[in-house]
Amino acid sequence: MLDARAFIRAKRDGRAHDPASLREFILGCARREIPDYQASAWLMAAFLRGLDDTETRALTLAFLHSGNVFGWSQLGVAADKHSTGGVGDKISLVLAPLVAACGVPVPMVSGRGLGHTGGTLDKLESIPGFRTQMEPDAMAAQMQALGVIMVGQGPDLAPADGHFYALRDVTSTVEFEPFIVSSIVSKKIAEGARAIVYDVKCGNGAFMKTREAARSLAARLVATSRGMDAAATACVTDMSWPIGHAVGNALEVVESWRVLRGDPVPGTRALTLALAAEMVRLASGAAPADASLARVTRALDGGKAAEKFLALVHAQGGDTRALEHGEPFRPAPVVVELRARKAGYLAGCDCFALGESVVAMGGGRRAKEDDVDPRVGLVLTRERGAKLAPGEAFATLHLAAPDEAMAARVIACFTVADQPPAALPADLVLERVTA
Amino acid sequence: MLDARAFIRAKRDGRAHDPASLREFILGCARREIPDYQASAWLMAAFLRGLDDTETRALTLAFLHSGNVFGWSQLGVAADKHSTGGVGDKISLVLAPLVAACGVPVPMVSGRGLGHTGGTLDKLESIPGFRTQMEPDAMAAQMQALGVIMVGQGPDLAPADGHFYALRDVTSTVEFEPFIVSSIVSKKIAEGARAIVYDVKCGNGAFMKTREAARSLAARLVATSRGMDAAATACVTDMSWPIGHAVGNALEVVESWRVLRGDPVPGTRALTLALAAEMVRLASGAAPADASLARVTRALDGGKAAEKFLALVHAQGGDTRALEHGEPFRPAPVVVELRARKAGYLAGCDCFALGESVVAMGGGRRAKEDDVDPRVGLVLTRERGAKLAPGEAFATLHLAAPDEAMAARVIACFTVADQPPAALPADLVLERVTA
Repeated sequence: MLDARAFIRAKRDGRAHDPASLREFILGCARREIPDYQASAWLMAAFLRGLDDTETRALTLAFLHSGNVFGWSQLGVAADKHSTGGVGDKISLVLAPLVAACGVPVPMVSGRGLGHTGGTLDKLESIPGFRTQMEPDAMAAQMQALGVIMVGQGPDLAPADGHFYALRDVTSTVEFEPFIVSSIVSKKIAEGARAIVYDVKCGNGAFMKTREAARSLAARLVATSRGMDAAATACVTDMSWPIGHAVGNALEVVESWRVLRGDPVPGTRALTLALAAEMVRLASGAAPADASLARVTRALDGGKAAEKFLALVHAQGGDTRALEHGEPFRPAPVVVELRARKAGYLAGCDCFALGESVVAMGGGRRAKEDDVDPRVGLVLTRERGAKLAPGEAFATLHLAAPDEAMAARVIACFTVADQPPAALPADLVLERVTA
Repeated sequence: MLDARAFIRAKRDGRAHDPASLREFILGCARREIPDYQASAWLMAAFLRGLDDTETRALTLAFLHSGNVFGWSQLGVAADKHSTGGVGDKISLVLAPLVAACGVPVPMVSGRGLGHTGGTLDKLESIPGFRTQMEPDAMAAQMQALGVIMVGQGPDLAPADGHFYALRDVTSTVEFEPFIVSSIVSKKIAEGARAIVYDVKCGNGAFMKTREAARSLAARLVATSRGMDAAATACVTDMSWPIGHAVGNALEVVESWRVLRGDPVPGTRALTLALAAEMVRLASGAAPADASLARVTRALDGGKAAEKFLALVHAQGGDTRALEHGEPFRPAPVVVELRARKAGYLAGCDCFALGESVVAMGGGRRAKEDDVDPRVGLVLTRERGAKLAPGEAFATLHLAAPDEAMAARVIACFTVADQPPAALPADLVLERVTA
């Protein structure tokens, strides 16, 4: 039986844990044999004293083995992508069916939006009838039939991570790389992904504000995944401007569907293709990068990805009519144009403030139990760098009710400058971390 | 309403708390409005990031004001002593009646033994019938009648400290000076003491192993007490050899009674007189030190202290017959002599190991709910520095049952050396800290 006090004291005094003790502590906490007040004292000690790579790997393994681990090897090498969260980040909605359309199984487990960033589950649930909770048997059947699922984290998937995640939230121990890494990687491995691409967002709308912080997290995600015998690449991508045009749950589904139908929405299309190509490459034993990019581009432009998405929505109970027939899709009752206050180039966006504004409009959560209004959000009608006349419209705001203060608040998130901004890479990928 | 997460984050990031926030957090925890897992995350953050003097004072005030504060000003300036805990430390049993016999009120609130050190309450409870729990009304009546009480901490005395003390114990955040100081000082102030002498033990049997650590704690105790408008002195005293002759609850009561009756037991008598003189001096508006020493020595040698002790024991339900008539006082069934393994000077003692041995004999606690056997312990029959022949007895061991291994273990706590040890001060006071 582990002495929890001695374990906590060891980390308090800066000593490293051996993997067996760490596992015993984590599983003891998850089984509630070790009380929350000891778990949280340890969380703070680890936050302030640090965890090395061996401890991070042991923590990941402990989370992993607290629940079930899916295996899809009869279907091929399963792939998945994880994003650290951004504003307008609807990439998964296009990516998952696209990669599956290339024959690579995608057992995607996603989260809900919390704070200023959106969540894939909330976006999917803006499709009427779409179910994000599935039993393991149903997941296996759909993986067999379609090669793709898009679901929430069930109670048997890394439950110890869920327990610690909730405790981190209330003890101010969230922003710590080893905790972030072990939480992310354990869930990806538990869902059965063996080829993982990490989209580490960087910029004012991201969790990681600096390139250095993003690069460090990217490297640790890749190293920890490899320590679990999974292939992994991390892409550090720009999050200083909303991805694509739409921010808001239903609005992002509409944009995703447009991209699936071939619309070359800047940012969204190129980033999706880049991440999809990397997933296909890793799942195919590191095939040449350009061949992978050609393969996913064909699958998107040939309509196979759109077909796969409709099949997925249908299989998970969603109503595909609005998508297929162009019917009005959860329209907001109030749509207003946002206009430039002065002439200049549309140069910058405070994405954090924009994300917070969408939450304030009802489109996100302040607490886990909050409901989300799928209708609200923003659609950019002009691109980053566009030259605007005074009073010229650059976006539409979609609201549940008239709200002039909100319109002013969202306009204030954008900078109109005398000079155009420096260009970003078309696919938003700032760098790739492969080791 | 305090944001507990932001409060924890502030300390995690090394920022100082303002007194109002600190008070709100502590009282919120004590009222259970802030859950234990947040309290313990904060405890660890404070332990690792530190608390400054202003925060330590605010913490002390928060503990103090979580309960009732006694006032004895109608009786004079109340005095008390706190010891950080030692082996054979029965000083309070002689000191409290002695100071009260000098006309200075002593509202002494003591603790139980935990770990290798003994506790005053356990010693008193080895007197048949002695009650250490009293209602506030009874405490006031006895203070009025006798000028002294010796009781345990009631539920209304600094209850927030009790809550945090229990959490510190299970989260490995005990050994942190601001926590130790605020816990000690808040209780002394709450019991109504306005003149406080701290006996900070130093050495292998003490909590503070080094002179520097003891001096630092001493200074912070004095400064924090003065910040509460109490007069205070701290004495750093030797704890590298058991105090006096006896270690063990009933055995220490017997020794205390002998000292009260005039027996000049080395260590016990001189240290008691030194601490008592300082209490009387502080309570009398800093009268000359030699006059205070003369006054307490007269009270001891004139029998007034013994008389006060009997009155105290009687008032708190204890049976005084064993003391008054020299009746057998909770004798242990097995008494064995401990003999030197070789010739030499009785030079050293591992007091921590000795204290732990007495706990193992049943004389102390491993957990708060453990029962204590009052009969067991050790009585030194030779003094520190005595010259021993091989096989010569130097102590008696008092056991519940024959235990040869225990006898060997206790003998091994003592060092017999070729040279006599350097002398200690007769009153064991290594230094006084007055500012």
